[in-house]
Amino acid sequence: MPNNKKILITLGDVCGIGPEIVVKALSSGKISVSPEDICIIGNKEVFYKIANELGLPPEDGVEIIDVPFDLATLKVGETSREAGRHSLLALQKACELVKDNYGCAIVTAPVSKKSINMAGHHYAGQTEILKEFLGAGALYKDESSSLLKGLKLSKRQKQPEMLFVAGNLRVLLLTRHIKIANVPHNLSKEGVLASIMTLALSLKRDFGIENPKIALCGLNPHAGESGLFGMEEEYILIPTIKKLRDKYSINVDGPFPADTLWAKAAKPFFSGQELDYDAYVACYHDQGLIPVKLLAMDIAVNTTINLPVIRTSPSHGTAYDIAGMNKANYMSMIESIKLAGTLSVEHATQAENVVC
Amino acid sequence: MPNNKKILITLGDVCGIGPEIVVKALSSGKISVSPEDICIIGNKEVFYKIANELGLPPEDGVEIIDVPFDLATLKVGETSREAGRHSLLALQKACELVKDNYGCAIVTAPVSKKSINMAGHHYAGQTEILKEFLGAGALYKDESSSLLKGLKLSKRQKQPEMLFVAGNLRVLLLTRHIKIANVPHNLSKEGVLASIMTLALSLKRDFGIENPKIALCGLNPHAGESGLFGMEEEYILIPTIKKLRDKYSINVDGPFPADTLWAKAAKPFFSGQELDYDAYVACYHDQGLIPVKLLAMDIAVNTTINLPVIRTSPSHGTAYDIAGMNKANYMSMIESIKLAGTLSVEHATQAENVVC
Repeated sequence: MPNNKKILITLGDVCGIGPEIVVKALSSGKISVSPEDICIIGNKEVFYKIANELGLPPEDGVEIIDVPFDLATLKVGETSREAGRHSLLALQKACELVKDNYGCAIVTAPVSKKSINMAGHHYAGQTEILKEFLGAGALYKDESSSLLKGLKLSKRQKQPEMLFVAGNLRVLLLTRHIKIANVPHNLSKEGVLASIMTLALSLKRDFGIENPKIALCGLNPHAGESGLFGMEEEYILIPTIKKLRDKYSINVDGPFPADTLWAKAAKPFFSGQELDYDAYVACYHDQGLIPVKLLAMDIAVNTTINLPVIRTSPSHGTAYDIAGMNKANYMSMIESIKLAGTLSVEHATQAENVVC
Repeated sequence: MPNNKKILITLGDVCGIGPEIVVKALSSGKISVSPEDICIIGNKEVFYKIANELGLPPEDGVEIIDVPFDLATLKVGETSREAGRHSLLALQKACELVKDNYGCAIVTAPVSKKSINMAGHHYAGQTEILKEFLGAGALYKDESSSLLKGLKLSKRQKQPEMLFVAGNLRVLLLTRHIKIANVPHNLSKEGVLASIMTLALSLKRDFGIENPKIALCGLNPHAGESGLFGMEEEYILIPTIKKLRDKYSINVDGPFPADTLWAKAAKPFFSGQELDYDAYVACYHDQGLIPVKLLAMDIAVNTTINLPVIRTSPSHGTAYDIAGMNKANYMSMIESIKLAGTLSVEHATQAENVVC
């Protein structure tokens, strides 16, 4: 790992499948990261208890930083104040280690928002917690980039963005957990511009893609068919693409009818060939996540970009219904750790290039 | 074919890829329908011209009913008044043959709405033309069905519905070519009830599925997550599902988060196994067509239900950009003819059962 920093893995909600998938992923032999480069953050007792129950003691060399948790309160498959407190403390510890230059990436196991709320902390999710503790806008701090010279950052450019990654498939959502009725007026020229610019910077900086190609889905059926089914393409998406191309030399195509754009991505994705685009941008949740889950259900990784470090997490929740049953699919956790490793190295290389 | 009726295939827009895909499909040896059971409807001269150019003369026994077209005006890859007139006449002839008990199904090659408009006829598409010439609501005319006794049909129940079919995957759209902003207030309890009831009747009558299982997608991300991201699930979809189940004994589940519902359908679809549901209902265009095109781009068939006969058509357009280039993919036309054959036989069997 770069500069002997470590990949920090938080255990998440200990009443969910978090500890189980971490233990299983570490023992899988598939994470492509050596034990010395990993640091688990979470309650030690719970971690060893679950590792022993699964018959999968962690390899020598894996560091575990303990986080207090009252084991007597452990109710597998249920929300609890104590579990929420543990989830938050683990994240907080991870952020401290990043600030101390000890961590180069954070991999977060799933948490329960409800438990965190029960513990008295009101966050929409882990991303908001990380943003508060670490700050966002990191991708815009590359002083050497001509693109960024004199750029006054908008509020949106100081936000983290969620990028789903499955192999070569990378999907950014322009809106996330809002109702469909609110999607159209949540798309603004400034917002779309900021999100796609953040994405372009991340593809370059985090993924090492020199001149990334990005495709944007239309909002409406057939991308509006020249205004026949909606004007958001004409008024918002098309002018923003033009500005991104003309003013910032960002290589964005679209807006495309989403159904045919995804269909074209499917063939090369399944046959392991290069896709037409380095990243795809969807206007709303289902438009991006239906294809991600259809194409790559088990291996999709939720990546947070524009934080000072890479953050990855499995694209599923705490799965209380199967917690403690030794049934959890840990493929997405494996992919999350692998991706954290790859991106950390890439990120460090890019940073060195910047220094040179 | 049932009662010696024929499958009627219209050539569609002769300036698009219609004639090419019909000629190729007929010569493919894959349509599972014998030549005597097929009747082409369209301009004979164009048909033979294209068949000869492709070196694929039609098999003996295929009947061709001529439709006037001034060959001097043929401009491949362009809209024209004359081509629009031909498209409409071919459809009209097909409907007459259905009324004369000569046709048991209509397969329509793609048309250009613009050309039909240029010819002075203002229709939104072929489905509207078929509805005008043939009438809709046919599925509700089964007097023996206890479900339909005393049912006062709503306007929506007298409409045709579009069902996409690809092997075992069947997908109905609750809204079609409207902008996303209009989708939420286009979903009403009455409308959703009518569409799903029409679907259930078609699955039974046209597809021969005795007690069909239907899954409904939620409108909002995570199907609204109990009202957190939108109330349409709570106010419209959930009560409608309850009514369909309790009052009409229609087996509908949901509303499900669309991304996970489709992901669950992907595995059995790709491995050729039975799907969890006989049909899936999507709230809007992209929610249904992203998965259809991702899973089954080339083989998806657009089926119109609730007309007096089965109607199928390829799930693509006139493709003017490749017309006359011998490049058109004719897989969807093959599937359209095959499905018309299968459904006609099924339909006839069900009709006999009703009589018994």
